[in-house]
Amino acid sequence: MAHIKLLNEELPGIVGLLTYRPETGKPLTELAEVLLRGPSSLSSGEREIIAASVSYWNKCHFCHTSHAAAAAAHLKTGIGLIDEIKAGLPNTEVSEKLRSLLHIAHQVQRGGKEVTEEDVAHARSLGATDQEIHDTVLIAAAFCMFNRYVDGLGTWAPEHNEAYTEMGERMAHKGYIRF
Amino acid sequence: MAHIKLLNEELPGIVGLLTYRPETGKPLTELAEVLLRGPSSLSSGEREIIAASVSYWNKCHFCHTSHAAAAAAHLKTGIGLIDEIKAGLPNTEVSEKLRSLLHIAHQVQRGGKEVTEEDVAHARSLGATDQEIHDTVLIAAAFCMFNRYVDGLGTWAPEHNEAYTEMGERMAHKGYIRF
Repeated sequence: MAHIKLLNEELPGIVGLLTYRPETGKPLTELAEVLLRGPSSLSSGEREIIAASVSYWNKCHFCHTSHAAAAAAHLKTGIGLIDEIKAGLPNTEVSEKLRSLLHIAHQVQRGGKEVTEEDVAHARSLGATDQEIHDTVLIAAAFCMFNRYVDGLGTWAPEHNEAYTEMGERMAHKGYIRF
Repeated sequence: MAHIKLLNEELPGIVGLLTYRPETGKPLTELAEVLLRGPSSLSSGEREIIAASVSYWNKCHFCHTSHAAAAAAHLKTGIGLIDEIKAGLPNTEVSEKLRSLLHIAHQVQRGGKEVTEEDVAHARSLGATDQEIHDTVLIAAAFCMFNRYVDGLGTWAPEHNEAYTEMGERMAHKGYIRF
């Protein structure tokens, strides 16, 4: 049970929190929408992989599984991608550029000061633009917020990957805005 | 110098980033505004103390000093409050309720799962409401984002406390919205 009394305790993860406090839910969902589905030279599938990876490193089961399911919906891989992301994508074809951005995201998850000039230069040498580097850092930072929000208030989450298929499709194709 | 080429490199900390990417700047500033200056039974001074404390624990000099200066502006304490927040407020009169919320915020900074039922029950026994607990967790989580955004992109920040006085006054009394 969550640490506070929500309006609808059946809503999992962040969903119940967004409904509990719509004043903060509005900018939070707008941020997710622009970061993950707004215009960008990174595909939504790539951005959801970054979000899901950071959430996994932060051990946030709800955010990891739902955003990995959203990545799977964008990329039409099937939900095997959820466990692939946990393992660091050993069997998934992703660009070297995305791998270098995932490294930057991991540094951000450890702490902002962990990102080095070399990390950024490496991503740039593989074709990453300034805006892609900016967006990667902000996606990683934002999920350090979302993950702490969801777990810090003790919300519940469905356990098995299969329970996230429909949620992932909805996140990918209908998006995040609800206010 | 920041890791990416900003439009105006003289703007410190998050300010240059908000201008670089207004699409994300808009929900980010709206979130700060509602969390720190929106209607709440926690005063803006108390909420800025939470934001500044989390930023200090995350070693984000720009966010710590600017939000501590904003707290000082709200509470009319003088900027000695900046170093008081660093030290854990040993000489500042704050309520036991706020101290219990600062403990919850510190747990969130360490990781969402660190918040225990006992932490929440203790805050509640000192009069904290569900919405105050919610807002404390979200302020702490949001500054884990803002801090990583500011430091992950290597932005510059003025060194000395005195340089933040005017910024703190502006944050406290004009607010965060700029788009």
